Amino acid sequence: MSLRAPRSLVHGDRVAVVALSTTVADPVQRPRVEQGIERLRAWGLDVVEGRHLWETHPDVAHLAAPDEARAADLVEAWSDPSVAAVLCARGGYGVQRLLSVLPPDALATGGGKWLVGFSDVTPLLHRVALEAGLQSVHGPVVAGLSDGEEAGIEALRSLLFGEVASGDAVLTGLTPWLEGEATGPLVGGNVALLAASVGTSDLVPARGAIAFLEDVGQPGFVLDRGLTQLLRSGWFDGVRGVVVGDFSMPSPPAEVEAVLRDRLLSLGVPVWAGGEFGHAPLNRALPHGAEVRLGRGVLSLA
Amino acid sequence: MSLRAPRSLVHGDRVAVVALSTTVADPVQRPRVEQGIERLRAWGLDVVEGRHLWETHPDVAHLAAPDEARAADLVEAWSDPSVAAVLCARGGYGVQRLLSVLPPDALATGGGKWLVGFSDVTPLLHRVALEAGLQSVHGPVVAGLSDGEEAGIEALRSLLFGEVASGDAVLTGLTPWLEGEATGPLVGGNVALLAASVGTSDLVPARGAIAFLEDVGQPGFVLDRGLTQLLRSGWFDGVRGVVVGDFSMPSPPAEVEAVLRDRLLSLGVPVWAGGEFGHAPLNRALPHGAEVRLGRGVLSLA
Repeated sequence: MSLRAPRSLVHGDRVAVVALSTTVADPVQRPRVEQGIERLRAWGLDVVEGRHLWETHPDVAHLAAPDEARAADLVEAWSDPSVAAVLCARGGYGVQRLLSVLPPDALATGGGKWLVGFSDVTPLLHRVALEAGLQSVHGPVVAGLSDGEEAGIEALRSLLFGEVASGDAVLTGLTPWLEGEATGPLVGGNVALLAASVGTSDLVPARGAIAFLEDVGQPGFVLDRGLTQLLRSGWFDGVRGVVVGDFSMPSPPAEVEAVLRDRLLSLGVPVWAGGEFGHAPLNRALPHGAEVRLGRGVLSLA
Repeated sequence: MSLRAPRSLVHGDRVAVVALSTTVADPVQRPRVEQGIERLRAWGLDVVEGRHLWETHPDVAHLAAPDEARAADLVEAWSDPSVAAVLCARGGYGVQRLLSVLPPDALATGGGKWLVGFSDVTPLLHRVALEAGLQSVHGPVVAGLSDGEEAGIEALRSLLFGEVASGDAVLTGLTPWLEGEATGPLVGGNVALLAASVGTSDLVPARGAIAFLEDVGQPGFVLDRGLTQLLRSGWFDGVRGVVVGDFSMPSPPAEVEAVLRDRLLSLGVPVWAGGEFGHAPLNRALPHGAEVRLGRGVLSLA
């Protein structure tokens, strides 16, 4: 799978902010997203808000607008050639419901642009790869631009503005669980969302790729279940290497690491841990689908 | 799919108790399982314990014995013609790991017997249906025989001992969310485990069947995600009716009901709620794979 990088952003570009998952209308999230939008403006970008950005689903309280409305916001932003990037306001839950009502080939239009998000947005990064043949950004949501660590926010900015070149590191300080080197496209995301995408058409296989994984808020046994589903369904078949990111879980860290080691080391490919991406305050942006090189404690663009 | 009912138990039969999921070696679970075994003896059964019943995985603390050892206990009990039923000590997590190391056709031997469990055991009920062509019991685990409500325990006893006949009700007092009648084999279990079985070979499709669903301990959005995966992967395609059991969730009951209604009513088939099965103290035994009739507030054997 060879994916095209969208055009890099330049000063003055228009970008769209959309809520595709959990609502951002509540008093906690709204100021975070508003501050994140201010940050985008400080980068010299012209921010347009999705029509349904500040809505909440009338019946299902954890969602932003109804599925069709969230999908419409995505399609409108994606198909508008004047929009150079689509940034998700936050994660949570809802992208899979959106994908079930998204028209086929809706993402094959628009001329190619960056999609930015992670966590619940994982299957949409995969859909963009499969349907548009495009790389995307696994990185901070707009709400995270308000209170995330600066190094992660700067990594997002530099990736979007085309300042990360071949050979540059996107992750450093990785710890070997099974030492070795590997190259391939970078594919992955949130374990729970990857597992919940099994059986759908929105999951890029890890075959031939470097898989990267993160997760949050699940007990160790639920993480085990998700990894086991990915293993049993064949998602990992042919993977060349694995990068383990942040796992901010309620279970003790030693238990989480035991589960990750138990499930991942059976793959017999290089596994490097301690990647600074995921739900911790430091969430370094990663180019989903880009060719990368893993080894010697570093993940770099190939 | 037409599944054979195993031979009914008679006084003096030998049954095996095995720990296929989370450990029962801790001070909370061990006395529950021991009391449950006493209950089985009070029914006149000769109880044999799996070799690894009281073990805990050396590395992964939420598991009983290692996967291969739990699988060996299952295979030993299942293939022993002197054992008339295999009862799971408790649920939790671990059956999917066990299934990934269980030899093919391991459950096609043994002459046919009851398997009893629910929750984490869900995919094993499905494997028994697919590989042995047998009905099984979705009902109390052995630990639940210590402190579950008597009506549920008695329902298990009467089902195992062949006292439930064609036309008899297995659930009553059901509430219509979408009124109507339907017949078919009874297929289902725990939503999280059904969703986590998508993409594996251990999931009986709901096509032509009456689906029954329960779950525990998940936020509303995780339940939504599981149901959405089942919908998107096609598991519900061709389902004839749905029975909603207990959903003991941390989210407010109104939120849980909103999610269930939102996801299930789109199927356009009869949906009846309030089934007394699942993780509440009253967990009525259900014959997984048996032909049933749903309607007028009752689920009965066809």
